[in-house]
Amino acid sequence: MTDIFNFSAGPAVLPKEVLQQAASEMLDWHGSGMSVMEMSHRGPEFMSIMDAAQRDLRDLLSVPENYQILFLQGGGLGENAIVPMNLMGSRPDATIDMVHTGSWSGKSIQEAAKYAKVNVAASAQGNGFSRIPDVSEWNLSASPAYVHLCTNETIDGVEFHSVPDIAERTAGAPIVADMSSHILSREIDVSAYGVIFGGAQKNIGPAGLTIAIVRDDLIGHALPCCPSAFDWKKIADNGSMYNTPPTYGIYIAGLVFQWLKRQGGVAALEQRNIEKAQLLYQCLDSTDFYESRVEVPFRSRMNVPFYLRDERLNAAFLAEAREHGLIQLKGHKSVGGMRASIYNAMPLEGVQALVDFMQEFASQHS
Amino acid sequence: MTDIFNFSAGPAVLPKEVLQQAASEMLDWHGSGMSVMEMSHRGPEFMSIMDAAQRDLRDLLSVPENYQILFLQGGGLGENAIVPMNLMGSRPDATIDMVHTGSWSGKSIQEAAKYAKVNVAASAQGNGFSRIPDVSEWNLSASPAYVHLCTNETIDGVEFHSVPDIAERTAGAPIVADMSSHILSREIDVSAYGVIFGGAQKNIGPAGLTIAIVRDDLIGHALPCCPSAFDWKKIADNGSMYNTPPTYGIYIAGLVFQWLKRQGGVAALEQRNIEKAQLLYQCLDSTDFYESRVEVPFRSRMNVPFYLRDERLNAAFLAEAREHGLIQLKGHKSVGGMRASIYNAMPLEGVQALVDFMQEFASQHS
Repeated sequence: MTDIFNFSAGPAVLPKEVLQQAASEMLDWHGSGMSVMEMSHRGPEFMSIMDAAQRDLRDLLSVPENYQILFLQGGGLGENAIVPMNLMGSRPDATIDMVHTGSWSGKSIQEAAKYAKVNVAASAQGNGFSRIPDVSEWNLSASPAYVHLCTNETIDGVEFHSVPDIAERTAGAPIVADMSSHILSREIDVSAYGVIFGGAQKNIGPAGLTIAIVRDDLIGHALPCCPSAFDWKKIADNGSMYNTPPTYGIYIAGLVFQWLKRQGGVAALEQRNIEKAQLLYQCLDSTDFYESRVEVPFRSRMNVPFYLRDERLNAAFLAEAREHGLIQLKGHKSVGGMRASIYNAMPLEGVQALVDFMQEFASQHS
Repeated sequence: MTDIFNFSAGPAVLPKEVLQQAASEMLDWHGSGMSVMEMSHRGPEFMSIMDAAQRDLRDLLSVPENYQILFLQGGGLGENAIVPMNLMGSRPDATIDMVHTGSWSGKSIQEAAKYAKVNVAASAQGNGFSRIPDVSEWNLSASPAYVHLCTNETIDGVEFHSVPDIAERTAGAPIVADMSSHILSREIDVSAYGVIFGGAQKNIGPAGLTIAIVRDDLIGHALPCCPSAFDWKKIADNGSMYNTPPTYGIYIAGLVFQWLKRQGGVAALEQRNIEKAQLLYQCLDSTDFYESRVEVPFRSRMNVPFYLRDERLNAAFLAEAREHGLIQLKGHKSVGGMRASIYNAMPLEGVQALVDFMQEFASQHS
């Protein structure tokens, strides 16, 4: 079999070593006689897996002690409701400021409006989500309940490369960041955020696990309508065991965290991710055959949407890519074109193979 | 290694063949070059897995065409909120009738009260949840929104062995059944219920997957506060792909469904489950050393809580059981004692090994 490189936007490629270990331990985890899937979540075996996963994630992101790491269900889309349900209880009449930078923040805005007044402080819709509106132009509230950002737009390929400096203008309102598709791909200052959340199925593990990192003072303000199973206070008080957590997903995430540490941690990964993204964007910018529609300063290192100028070649591109072992390159149906997602587990060789193929394809069809 | 028999109440034992297949396919599913965990949920590979799982479950339970099979997240505890959120939109002032038969229905009652008026139509709390109150004594509403039952109480070991005949007294209100811990263990008439739901982690697969079987006319009545990601209408309209489903859990569930079919289906499993339960209850009833506190007609075939008359021997019992490869037998902390969960994947030999050990332990310590 040719080497396969999987550019899916998520669920996405996982480190081969992680899958190999999971396969080898499937029937008997560490001599317990059980698969991880068969363990009571309250037994000592799974508790050790859970504790290690939380500790390793805390290490990897240098999560301060006054933040809780919660393992949840429901994905990013679920969290779009669960976040306002958890934060609006103390100030139900306050406004949520939200910045519209692409498809995912758009969904968050729609959903939050079911639970609170929403102020769209800025929107890049008018220019096709090719840039992030300048922070100086954001129309922020004087004292919003919180400010919501999607710091990496998986579909539109737009990424925040720094934390917007808005504390003074918003009376120190917490920033809530949907980091689903770039968490652990770069160093971040957790203390700059009130809440960080993300579905696991991009850079962390399998679909069905959601991670939330929440500052202590933001826990305990749930609306009465918030389901107990999604109430951060109940979850935090019970060590993410209020209801049965997605145990196997947490186990795989834990293996990914260990793999990240062996790679040198997030700083080392970030360097590799910069290199991978440069290689691919250089290829896109070096020819008129392909096109990136995102302005340079806002380009995502994780999700690279691009277009063939002659879209009649799309089907041939995808078919030939597949023959070269380069799969799941089709763009999201809402924007068309192509998309290469190059998460942590995508090796540089995968991006090199893609670039080599793209150049070959361009020269054959120019 | 001795054969291990795992009596966990959930997450619980899975068929060894299923785990073997999952291990062998972990790095490359059917020549796709991908693990199932790495597949886009919208790609043809995962779509085929999803379709087969839904079809096989429909076959196994003879689910009529006017019922949707939904794959969700959030577990039974999440569904305690999600069910009223989905059913109360059209009649927000109606009452939910609920029957209190143990710990799980108790939790459902508490949670439902956040979304609607609840009438506890009957409760077995007064007699320690040792029986199901006689249907003739249920204090039902004339036209409740629905009637909620937990048809197998995992902690208390009480099971409904027939569907209560209440349609006339409730103006045909739909019965909503939490079948988490006995779904697929016995034949059921799906058409007798409006909604059947359950967490997967007992008889179906890994934790993190929840299954709901919902009659068509009960879809589309969500309360405004229902999160989109848990709105049955959105989920049904999108083939359980409104948000990213727990793909690996669905894959494992699909393998379990195929295993069930190879065993002869639910009818064959039910016979085996009757045999296993008889063996264990006969052991309990044949001696004064052990005690089952559930009255005979209401005893669960899946979850068998029992007590040593001399509770000072509990620690020795668990330690010696473990030496015999019989694990996770400790009772739930809320009720103490022991509990043997003997789901579909527990072979008769496992129950025989337990009974042999129990008799040996009793004779040594009498």
